[in-house]
Amino acid sequence: MLSTTPRTTLGRAKDRSRTGREDLYAVLDAGLVCHLGVVAGGVPMVVPTGYGRIDDTLYLHGSTGATSLRAEGEVCVTVTHLDGIVLARSSFNHSMNYRCAMIYGRPRRVKDAEERLAALRAITEQLAPGRWDATRKPTPKELAATAVLALSLSEASVKVRQGPPLDEEEDYALPIWAGVLPLHQSWGTPEPDPAMTADLPVPDHVASRTIPVR
Amino acid sequence: MLSTTPRTTLGRAKDRSRTGREDLYAVLDAGLVCHLGVVAGGVPMVVPTGYGRIDDTLYLHGSTGATSLRAEGEVCVTVTHLDGIVLARSSFNHSMNYRCAMIYGRPRRVKDAEERLAALRAITEQLAPGRWDATRKPTPKELAATAVLALSLSEASVKVRQGPPLDEEEDYALPIWAGVLPLHQSWGTPEPDPAMTADLPVPDHVASRTIPVR
Repeated sequence: MLSTTPRTTLGRAKDRSRTGREDLYAVLDAGLVCHLGVVAGGVPMVVPTGYGRIDDTLYLHGSTGATSLRAEGEVCVTVTHLDGIVLARSSFNHSMNYRCAMIYGRPRRVKDAEERLAALRAITEQLAPGRWDATRKPTPKELAATAVLALSLSEASVKVRQGPPLDEEEDYALPIWAGVLPLHQSWGTPEPDPAMTADLPVPDHVASRTIPVR
Repeated sequence: MLSTTPRTTLGRAKDRSRTGREDLYAVLDAGLVCHLGVVAGGVPMVVPTGYGRIDDTLYLHGSTGATSLRAEGEVCVTVTHLDGIVLARSSFNHSMNYRCAMIYGRPRRVKDAEERLAALRAITEQLAPGRWDATRKPTPKELAATAVLALSLSEASVKVRQGPPLDEEEDYALPIWAGVLPLHQSWGTPEPDPAMTADLPVPDHVASRTIPVR
């Protein structure tokens, strides 16, 4: 079960709330980018960034010089999948179908060499499965330039909306088309780096990903 | 030209910075959802939400009860398009191709009836072009339940990464496939609301959108 702190308990649209840990994992594991919110100099800052998950820990990384990773205090990490536009009979009831996870907490800076490497592997594999083993591993210099943060998944909420519009009772009789326009993501054809000197085939871990994302 | 305040001037990866207002408009106008960052109770909160733009003002809306719209102080609104995964020869140089806009400022609560309606129209049209004129307009009761915020586009930054990986000089000789795996978005087949009583055809403003998003 997920936490039930005030900020992870929905005040409105409670029917959109999901409370299982597997719901959280599903939203996170299907994502590619999260939006990391920090407070820097008293004001919020929201940056898109990659992430990885190992069990109940979310890992983030970036340059040791990045403002967003140097900020102190609590953060909010949000992962959103937009699945479709909900076209209602009234403008008021227009909506989106989506899956969204929000995680709150104070990240821990990862210093242990083994955990740092595992985290970087998870982040790389989230973005590009199969890539960690296929590429050159980080050098000590690269590792020194990389900050790794760990955020516990102990305080999180998941919100999901799916299905047709919900209109006002009296609006259903209106002669207005209503429904959902689904939004899909898909992988395109791999584009080899023009700087590749050898004539290497597209590896399986890339080619096999050229299927719809969902 | 966009602003050059410290927080909108890139400290790293300066070559990814775009400084024209038209670059900002292009990222915003192509988007469907933004991530709104606020500080609530001293901690950051990042929520996905719709938005609309009229000239140099970004509009947001939501329930008058929403925590994210009731928070005081400055906000950060981020719109991100993920265009592809950049597969480098080293794990360190893996990246994403993306277009991202970040807007900072203190939003103004819109009270003027005419501006509120124009804002709601812009937000609806951003999500679903052609939909405002095709659907029932908001009632006074619906309008009373809706908070509308205006955020000036005066302090904003745009960051764009496109193209193949950038590897370390000595890595180009490695026998590792490198390139970009593009990520595409597309509209699916419209799904009529099963609750529709009349046999209405899919309107043009919905059907004509069933083309790739980009």
